[in-house]
Amino acid sequence: MPDYSTNIYLKKKSLTEARTLLFEKFAALMKTAAAETVPTPNAVGRVLARGVPALRSSPAHHLSAMDGIAVKAEQTFGAGETTPKTLAVGREAFFVNTGNLLPAGTNAVIMIEDVHVIDDATVEILAPSFPWQYVRKAGEDIVATELLFPTNHVVTPYCVGALLAAGVTSVSVRKKPRVLILPTGSELVDWEDKTDPAGLAPGKILESNSYMLGALVRACGAEPVRHPILPDDPDTIAQALKKAVDDGDYQAVMLVGGSSAGAKDYSWIVIDRLGEVFVHGLTIMPGKPLIIGAVSTVPVFGMPGYPVSAVVCFEELVRPLLCRMQGLPVPVRKTVSAILAKKTASKLGVEEFLRVKLGKVDDIVIATQLPRGAGSVTSLADADAFVRVPASTEGMAEAQAVTAELLRPLSDIEQTVVVVGSHDNTLDVLSDMIAARGLGFKLASTHVGSMGGLMAVARGRCHVAGSHLLDEKTGEYNISYIQKHLAGMPVKLVKLVSREQGLMVVPGNPKNISGIADIARTGVTFINRQAGSGTRILLDFKLKELGIDPGAIDGYANDEYTHMSVAIAVASGVADTGLGILAAARALGLDFIPVVSEEYDLVIPARFFDLPGIATLLKVIQSPAFAERVNTLGGYGTHNTGKVIDLG
Amino acid sequence: MPDYSTNIYLKKKSLTEARTLLFEKFAALMKTAAAETVPTPNAVGRVLARGVPALRSSPAHHLSAMDGIAVKAEQTFGAGETTPKTLAVGREAFFVNTGNLLPAGTNAVIMIEDVHVIDDATVEILAPSFPWQYVRKAGEDIVATELLFPTNHVVTPYCVGALLAAGVTSVSVRKKPRVLILPTGSELVDWEDKTDPAGLAPGKILESNSYMLGALVRACGAEPVRHPILPDDPDTIAQALKKAVDDGDYQAVMLVGGSSAGAKDYSWIVIDRLGEVFVHGLTIMPGKPLIIGAVSTVPVFGMPGYPVSAVVCFEELVRPLLCRMQGLPVPVRKTVSAILAKKTASKLGVEEFLRVKLGKVDDIVIATQLPRGAGSVTSLADADAFVRVPASTEGMAEAQAVTAELLRPLSDIEQTVVVVGSHDNTLDVLSDMIAARGLGFKLASTHVGSMGGLMAVARGRCHVAGSHLLDEKTGEYNISYIQKHLAGMPVKLVKLVSREQGLMVVPGNPKNISGIADIARTGVTFINRQAGSGTRILLDFKLKELGIDPGAIDGYANDEYTHMSVAIAVASGVADTGLGILAAARALGLDFIPVVSEEYDLVIPARFFDLPGIATLLKVIQSPAFAERVNTLGGYGTHNTGKVIDLG
Repeated sequence: MPDYSTNIYLKKKSLTEARTLLFEKFAALMKTAAAETVPTPNAVGRVLARGVPALRSSPAHHLSAMDGIAVKAEQTFGAGETTPKTLAVGREAFFVNTGNLLPAGTNAVIMIEDVHVIDDATVEILAPSFPWQYVRKAGEDIVATELLFPTNHVVTPYCVGALLAAGVTSVSVRKKPRVLILPTGSELVDWEDKTDPAGLAPGKILESNSYMLGALVRACGAEPVRHPILPDDPDTIAQALKKAVDDGDYQAVMLVGGSSAGAKDYSWIVIDRLGEVFVHGLTIMPGKPLIIGAVSTVPVFGMPGYPVSAVVCFEELVRPLLCRMQGLPVPVRKTVSAILAKKTASKLGVEEFLRVKLGKVDDIVIATQLPRGAGSVTSLADADAFVRVPASTEGMAEAQAVTAELLRPLSDIEQTVVVVGSHDNTLDVLSDMIAARGLGFKLASTHVGSMGGLMAVARGRCHVAGSHLLDEKTGEYNISYIQKHLAGMPVKLVKLVSREQGLMVVPGNPKNISGIADIARTGVTFINRQAGSGTRILLDFKLKELGIDPGAIDGYANDEYTHMSVAIAVASGVADTGLGILAAARALGLDFIPVVSEEYDLVIPARFFDLPGIATLLKVIQSPAFAERVNTLGGYGTHNTGKVIDLG
Repeated sequence: MPDYSTNIYLKKKSLTEARTLLFEKFAALMKTAAAETVPTPNAVGRVLARGVPALRSSPAHHLSAMDGIAVKAEQTFGAGETTPKTLAVGREAFFVNTGNLLPAGTNAVIMIEDVHVIDDATVEILAPSFPWQYVRKAGEDIVATELLFPTNHVVTPYCVGALLAAGVTSVSVRKKPRVLILPTGSELVDWEDKTDPAGLAPGKILESNSYMLGALVRACGAEPVRHPILPDDPDTIAQALKKAVDDGDYQAVMLVGGSSAGAKDYSWIVIDRLGEVFVHGLTIMPGKPLIIGAVSTVPVFGMPGYPVSAVVCFEELVRPLLCRMQGLPVPVRKTVSAILAKKTASKLGVEEFLRVKLGKVDDIVIATQLPRGAGSVTSLADADAFVRVPASTEGMAEAQAVTAELLRPLSDIEQTVVVVGSHDNTLDVLSDMIAARGLGFKLASTHVGSMGGLMAVARGRCHVAGSHLLDEKTGEYNISYIQKHLAGMPVKLVKLVSREQGLMVVPGNPKNISGIADIARTGVTFINRQAGSGTRILLDFKLKELGIDPGAIDGYANDEYTHMSVAIAVASGVADTGLGILAAARALGLDFIPVVSEEYDLVIPARFFDLPGIATLLKVIQSPAFAERVNTLGGYGTHNTGKVIDLG
């Protein structure tokens, strides 16, 4: 058996304790950040290492602010409509263009429109000028020696204009901290070594954390350097870490992976061997297996291998350090008040970072929890915000008011069309085609089944619900359910597609499944859809028709939330078969035994039809291009696509 | 005389008209933006040219989520505290680490902590496992073929993680539009050609607009290319423009400068000669002299030469076009409600873009107008927001509610210490040293004189007022004024510096000025400070003492708002002398005739002493380093610096 002797977290800390310790241990690095000189035009985004005084006034001399003639104002006094004054060109009046130097002895400009040119040598004026009229006086904008920007100012494009106007052609900025990122793990493969990722050996994965962390390092103004992947071998890792520190070229190091307390987790052993470990383990989730240590004076982080954990640890601890090293304050995310879409249990004593999608419906921001696993990188990529569940609570209720820490601007979120309900693969097509219009509208779908979608509409939690609820009595879809569950609310039913539901099986159909009756057979395992989904309602209807007891089905209690999840359960051997749509079966190369053709519609409250996002949605659904793309998926009918039925 | 025949704006438009026309004329460019393929790790910040489906599920196979043993759950049923079950290693139980592939035939993992290892071949368990316990099932996060991100999605660092996890090693993104920036103007000098900018010939300036616009182009995801400076010669400019268009390598061109309707403004002539001009002149300020045209199918902008005009035109018109070409929505600035610090007159029929500094005092955001001139690049660099004055109004009142369009995050603005009142050069030192602490606090000063500062305190418009008001009767500074004007408000007086006031004259003192009496002499011109400033009050007191009639002083009615402006007026010959502080005279190399030593203090309402920004301000003032830096300026005393006097 493997050696599990390291299987404990020493030095476990709360996030606050860890940050305090981090800032204490590396206080010196924040005060002594090195500086370098760069040309002003290249300084955008950089942090000034010292305050910059103007080297030159702007304008540096008195300039004409108009096309016209420069004069000495005192010589124009007395000019009027009935008392015109003539001036000698070249002696009393000088033609100037905007931006020209004011000739010596002049102190005002008269616009060319107000000048009557008599001949080459003489002009006439009908009004006096006052001193400094239409003159941009020296120093009007910038006075030499004045402070233009203070220490730690971040140079903007506008600053470049001001600096050059003030004669400052180079500035002293903080050197970007160089951060070495060292991915570890024998299961990792570099994307550059693998042209056909579909052909990766089982158990191997493309290394991605170093690139994600590298992009985050760059986004906070530091410079990431990626080390090639290292295998799970403490000596190799130690050697690479020692070399990096000895080089003296890195202001921080991140070992990625192996930071937990498992058998193959060598990061803490390596850091402990070469230096010191201050923190091992955080009371946060995701992000528990973090290590903070130092080798010589260099901060060394043992980052968790799960992507969400790595990101949370980076953003809560590494980024603050990198910012402070550059003279920047610790970044704080903007927040918005929201309500939680569903209840969440949480472990006492652990601060949890929920990733949520946000949508604004009827002026209320709704936060829908994304998958909670630390390995769910899509929960990060899809997230609009984080919601913290404090260590002191055991969970949060549905509709509880929370503070969402934004990862995207709120204006983006306000343009999101929120879809809740049944899953269908054409929603992907819809999402892509709406976004393709380039107007900023996007679709955000959460899959909770058809009934869940209608409930969300009833509670004002979404703009659109996807639904395929069969009325056993009428054989009609959705309408009777809407009349019952959304009574009194004017809604419209937008016909999306008709589609084939059937049983998915692995190619060749080894268990010889030919219809619903076969799923109760001994030796056949089934994967179900969740209660409240249209597919589950369809299944139960069919079982009742056939007089089959659900208890007789192996796997009836195991459920998934989407057609694609059912398909992958079948494809990967979790179950022999499951009920779902042809498009999902075809996407994963499964065989398909048709059971029924059904209607999949969108339910939209009438009050949302004025929203530009909903107008765009309808435009897309009613476009021929939509039907065309849907038909390439297989198993769909589009005869009624885009028809709108007024209800309620 | 020059040829003024082009001196008219043809095709003048409002901003809305111009934008509509722009989008109509170049609609084709927005639909046909070219794509290119880039490796996923390099795609951060890029815009997806098409939706990206997952190539691989993640996990691709069932993986262990724990260190422990993999088992077939069904074989563990019945295990319990009193009914332990033994399993054969290598047949019924397999040691696995987190992330390992689940061995064939297993469907659950038991944590190593719950496993009793009997010997190398046998383990014992005291509890059953359920199917798929501690297993990361294939497709749990990503199912192959599902849409990961739609068309026009902007790739984030998190997306890189999701894409690589899904086996996507390269993506198709929009090509960055290449934008040629062509600075024109015979007065322009490139910074690289001038190592000593102080020595620029009179009338020459460092070209800066192309760099500022270039940085703005880059910030909206496009790629700027800078053309060398061209002189004011229509043939040369036309030749360069023609070559750029013929090359076919640019998606847009900006000619910078020469876009007005003056004698040397050739941009519209050149664009008209080679193509078509749609817009010449906008009813906005700054930004009036804009040209929009096309040569062949390439959009060509004639950008104004004044930096603020150029930026406003870029942000209102060029940026929207560049964004739409990349499939991005037109950017909209975040806004905040604010009140105007002072009234503003504005021209009917012209939409004005005021640049404002923002500060939050007692939960009210106050917008202080910056200089309005189109040439004031510092008004951009210092601005926190724009405020639009609609074309239909003739101005806005003091304290009027306005919508400020943010250029910086509101959180930055909330950390600003707002200083209003008298000007002193040590405020620069203070500003620099507060920012140098790196905590995000900064000082924003507006100079309206000592009395203006006290009024701002009285109205809750600032945190701190700088003041040096002499009480003629007591010879004491500030206290009697505070007692009168801030009666009932608890405030503290923080002693900043004592300083020398005196008359500034050009080196050598050619007019032989030796004291206040001389400024009324014939042949001597004076530059005054504004009414309400401590220096003006000091002057008037001295004139009264000497029995001099202000009307006898040439220039008494001309005023400036800061010591440095008075200094530059003297240095540049606007006036022979002015009253101000030694530090200002010394900064510009002027001679100085001392008049009086005075106290310059900070007035701070007691209620602000709990703010962390004010605490930082006090810490800086009371640090020895502050006194040290102040003393290098000259003319200052720091014996009382940092003392705090409670008043009211």
